[in-house]
Amino acid sequence: MPGHATNEETTVIRTHHAGSLRASDAGQTVTLAGWVARRRDHGGVTFIDLRDASGIVQIVFRNEADAHALRNEYCVKVTGQVDRRPAGNENPELPTGEIEVTVTELVVLSESAPLPLPVDDYIEAGDDLRLKYRYLDLRRSGPAKALKLRSRANQIAREVLHARDFNEIETPTLTRSTPEGARDFLVPVRLQPGTWYALPQSPQLFKQLLMVAGLERYYQIARCYRDEDFRADRQPEFTQLDIEMSFVTQDDVIELGEALVAALWGELAGHEVQLPIPRITWHDAMARYGSDKPDLRYGVELTELTDYLRGTEFRVFSAAIMAGGYVGAVVMPGGAAQTRKELDGWQDWAKARGAKGLAYVVLDAETGEARGPVAKNLSEEHLAGLADAVGAKPGDAVFFAASTDRREAQELLGAARIEIAKRANLIDESAWAFCWVVDAPMFEPDDAGGWTAVHHPFTSPNDEWLDRFETAPGDALAYAYDIVCNGNEIGGGSVRIHRGDVQRRVFDLLGISPEEAADKFGFLLEAFKYGPPPHAGIALGWDRVCMLLAGADSIREVISFPKTRGGFDPLTSAPTPITAQQRLEAGVDAKPKAPAPAAGTAGAAAPVEHSS
Amino acid sequence: MPGHATNEETTVIRTHHAGSLRASDAGQTVTLAGWVARRRDHGGVTFIDLRDASGIVQIVFRNEADAHALRNEYCVKVTGQVDRRPAGNENPELPTGEIEVTVTELVVLSESAPLPLPVDDYIEAGDDLRLKYRYLDLRRSGPAKALKLRSRANQIAREVLHARDFNEIETPTLTRSTPEGARDFLVPVRLQPGTWYALPQSPQLFKQLLMVAGLERYYQIARCYRDEDFRADRQPEFTQLDIEMSFVTQDDVIELGEALVAALWGELAGHEVQLPIPRITWHDAMARYGSDKPDLRYGVELTELTDYLRGTEFRVFSAAIMAGGYVGAVVMPGGAAQTRKELDGWQDWAKARGAKGLAYVVLDAETGEARGPVAKNLSEEHLAGLADAVGAKPGDAVFFAASTDRREAQELLGAARIEIAKRANLIDESAWAFCWVVDAPMFEPDDAGGWTAVHHPFTSPNDEWLDRFETAPGDALAYAYDIVCNGNEIGGGSVRIHRGDVQRRVFDLLGISPEEAADKFGFLLEAFKYGPPPHAGIALGWDRVCMLLAGADSIREVISFPKTRGGFDPLTSAPTPITAQQRLEAGVDAKPKAPAPAAGTAGAAAPVEHSS
Repeated sequence: MPGHATNEETTVIRTHHAGSLRASDAGQTVTLAGWVARRRDHGGVTFIDLRDASGIVQIVFRNEADAHALRNEYCVKVTGQVDRRPAGNENPELPTGEIEVTVTELVVLSESAPLPLPVDDYIEAGDDLRLKYRYLDLRRSGPAKALKLRSRANQIAREVLHARDFNEIETPTLTRSTPEGARDFLVPVRLQPGTWYALPQSPQLFKQLLMVAGLERYYQIARCYRDEDFRADRQPEFTQLDIEMSFVTQDDVIELGEALVAALWGELAGHEVQLPIPRITWHDAMARYGSDKPDLRYGVELTELTDYLRGTEFRVFSAAIMAGGYVGAVVMPGGAAQTRKELDGWQDWAKARGAKGLAYVVLDAETGEARGPVAKNLSEEHLAGLADAVGAKPGDAVFFAASTDRREAQELLGAARIEIAKRANLIDESAWAFCWVVDAPMFEPDDAGGWTAVHHPFTSPNDEWLDRFETAPGDALAYAYDIVCNGNEIGGGSVRIHRGDVQRRVFDLLGISPEEAADKFGFLLEAFKYGPPPHAGIALGWDRVCMLLAGADSIREVISFPKTRGGFDPLTSAPTPITAQQRLEAGVDAKPKAPAPAAGTAGAAAPVEHSS
Repeated sequence: MPGHATNEETTVIRTHHAGSLRASDAGQTVTLAGWVARRRDHGGVTFIDLRDASGIVQIVFRNEADAHALRNEYCVKVTGQVDRRPAGNENPELPTGEIEVTVTELVVLSESAPLPLPVDDYIEAGDDLRLKYRYLDLRRSGPAKALKLRSRANQIAREVLHARDFNEIETPTLTRSTPEGARDFLVPVRLQPGTWYALPQSPQLFKQLLMVAGLERYYQIARCYRDEDFRADRQPEFTQLDIEMSFVTQDDVIELGEALVAALWGELAGHEVQLPIPRITWHDAMARYGSDKPDLRYGVELTELTDYLRGTEFRVFSAAIMAGGYVGAVVMPGGAAQTRKELDGWQDWAKARGAKGLAYVVLDAETGEARGPVAKNLSEEHLAGLADAVGAKPGDAVFFAASTDRREAQELLGAARIEIAKRANLIDESAWAFCWVVDAPMFEPDDAGGWTAVHHPFTSPNDEWLDRFETAPGDALAYAYDIVCNGNEIGGGSVRIHRGDVQRRVFDLLGISPEEAADKFGFLLEAFKYGPPPHAGIALGWDRVCMLLAGADSIREVISFPKTRGGFDPLTSAPTPITAQQRLEAGVDAKPKAPAPAAGTAGAAAPVEHSS
């Protein structure tokens, strides 16, 4: 009975999807197509799990010989009758578990060689193998489900946006390189030898131009490119849900962001997001959590001790305090129970982060007495009030950080906070904790004693600072906002400057001359001469959002064909050398014909708005 | 009263959209924001058309001085009362024409310099100026409407596809270069100096891999890249609606294509597409219309005269006939009324196409007598029956083409047919005529006496030819189909080969050795070892589809920031030279560290499936 497909048989049509059959279909003759997933031979009868995209159904060959040739992952078409399974043989874990299909006709559509990667949900495989045979990996239900979830996430986001009159607009990906943008991916242009396009790091400038164009509400699920040293879980190409709106304030963008998050998490994670999502200022986030993307699934807040410890003779602390720096602490509940080895382990942990170490005291579980290396160096008075000052109980450990650089010390404590939550098992893995981090600083000092923009130089100061950011650049705040989920920054954006006078003042502060501005940002500045509207936007890191929704631990799980670190694709072996002929044709080595176009309408490629 | 925006004033922006106000809003106080579109001063009162994305409303300054500073395209915020216009002053052409807003407060959000491109629907501007100031061009209602239509087209297509359980899946755009693919855009890889990615010409190979992965129904509105010499109306980056399905036949894909077209044209062109769309075989399309993308809005069919004229002494015809070639004709209704100069013009037209000329006779409007240069060379008998043979009437002109190469002659007549329709005004510009062109040839002879694939080498022969395409490669037909609208190919696709034995036979015929196949297509062939399902797909040329729906005459009208010929962007001046530092960093001149990865899992970048 089994045979290879003949011509007529390749006009395959199946009458049903394997996973859709139910007891109510019993008695029907159906034709199915799919893959041989699992096989059991049993007393002359062969049972096979037939898998297609809809699920799995058990098919039965009454004569074992008929199924003899079938191997795992053969692609087959079968015709047969849907039968109720004999009483007691039902499989309640399978939606089709009440029935089976008794095969009367089998066509092998294609055979499978022995599998380099078993198609089995319960087998762990290395990443390189999974990526090289991604098409087998994706036959497993988990990986396939992640891609389907992503498809549905796109659809949900679009529904929210179209209901609010957003237009989906594609922006160019062969665009202009920034003069200083060594980290743009570049593309030689055969038709204008010696010149290059750059792949955009985001559609930032183009979406702002669309606002100048009066389109008012733009979105795009946009491919972006960033040529950077690969940190864990980065890809050279990534996707953001990119949004820009005119005639709006920060609150309008935040409201939209919340609508998106509520729709996505509501449907795909079964979680009702409580709106409005709490907002925390950037300075509060740093002070309380030592992070600009705080994980709010647990407490463990930082305490500043700069004032409390003023006058201490412990050099590590006093040096920071006297220099106008910061001393703070974070409490590890139950941390006094750690072994000496565990406590030493924290020193290694801190050194791996680039710190000198992590000062600590432990509070005796019985007496509350402070012990440990730091305790000896603190006065009795400081020790006596410490537990109250940091909110610690007997049996806890208190970790300290001190630095002349407030942010550096806070970030060390913030990292310790995360590590504490892990080691002390404080994270509710089923929880979702969102927050907006707002009022970010406009500027930070650069190495040359000037100022640099924390976001991009088109980010607007907030109302309070609009007229006077020059008076205290380090304190000036921007209308810039990030949305954070469980300690992951999943999106960020800002209100943009639309007034020429404000933009010029920002450039002045940044030390960007009019000539340099024209050279770098010429075409955007030119556009801003013609009645630009107030506008603001946001970008959600779409790979990250989908990863969280899928409950995955890497963005690679929600990317169809991801690359490994270093940008290598184990499936296609890209990137590769090119031939001399390709090199010649592409004009890689040609000298450009004409000098670069004059400034004024020249300009930079899009600066980044990303939610890394 | 008019003033610059203060901090507070930038916070709330508008209460209503300008174009949404109606008589029922009379009496309300509203705040609007938008652009100064047109201004009329009239007896101390100033009338301004205020434009936002929703439309236009008339705003009135009772005191002319208040509006004194306003110039075209200033971006403003106004507060005022909605009033019914005085009787007789209504403007029935404007949705808001029954009312006006009497301004009590004006804030200038931003000023505009004098405009290099007037924002006026009735002004013609050169393409270079329009593209350089595309953000002003898009403030005009026509260009903005085209982009909004495209957004809606995306949404409609997605609705159709999601209703049919398709998954939207993104595929990589930094991928592998084909060994021979001199026309891929290339991207140097800094982290692996000396190696390059290629930008894909289509997601073809990846979508086939997704079928091997069992995902069954894939789509993507995909950015594609093609580095080719720019013909009219081509862009280096373009977009296709890319689709692939498993366990389907050609008919299933065609049915889906028809559902998409019916939904798009139904809503966006107000045209009910009659389904099923007629199918014509490739050979019939060539025979009847001299084109594989026939415009069916008019008749003017070709007539083959090879048999009719057999035995003629007219050398031009007899040479073609004796060599086994083709003679044919096409009739221009009323063409006998053309002046000598007009008839000579056809010769120039033919020469411009690369033909030697275009033989013709004209049939006297009174007597039907055949005249003209060819008439002298034909026998009386041939002349007597000619009108009947070609379906001409007195007063018509008959154009001939003869060649040993049937296709060449048919294409000349096909081009003449289009030109006839234009010159004789036979095209109903409001009509929509769709057809599928099916049964395309598998192979065509190459210059070396072998065969080359008409589509890509993964295209399946149809059932009739599956087992014997080697017996007559030039006659073998493929399951390949194009959809044509008004003479434009708007999409195309094929059933793919999924059987290794068939694929090997196709490679053999094409003279592709197993080694070469492994080198070129290795990773796809490797994937096909593991139970690939029967699959088929289609891609719609999305720029073209949107162009037709928008009634535009160039794809640039439906692209936000298009490039000119040669790939130049007048807005950003891309592409540009790069700095020595960028060149060094990008590794452009580095030698690759290791040889290219071994064949087998190596492979080619995606071959093209496009509907250009």
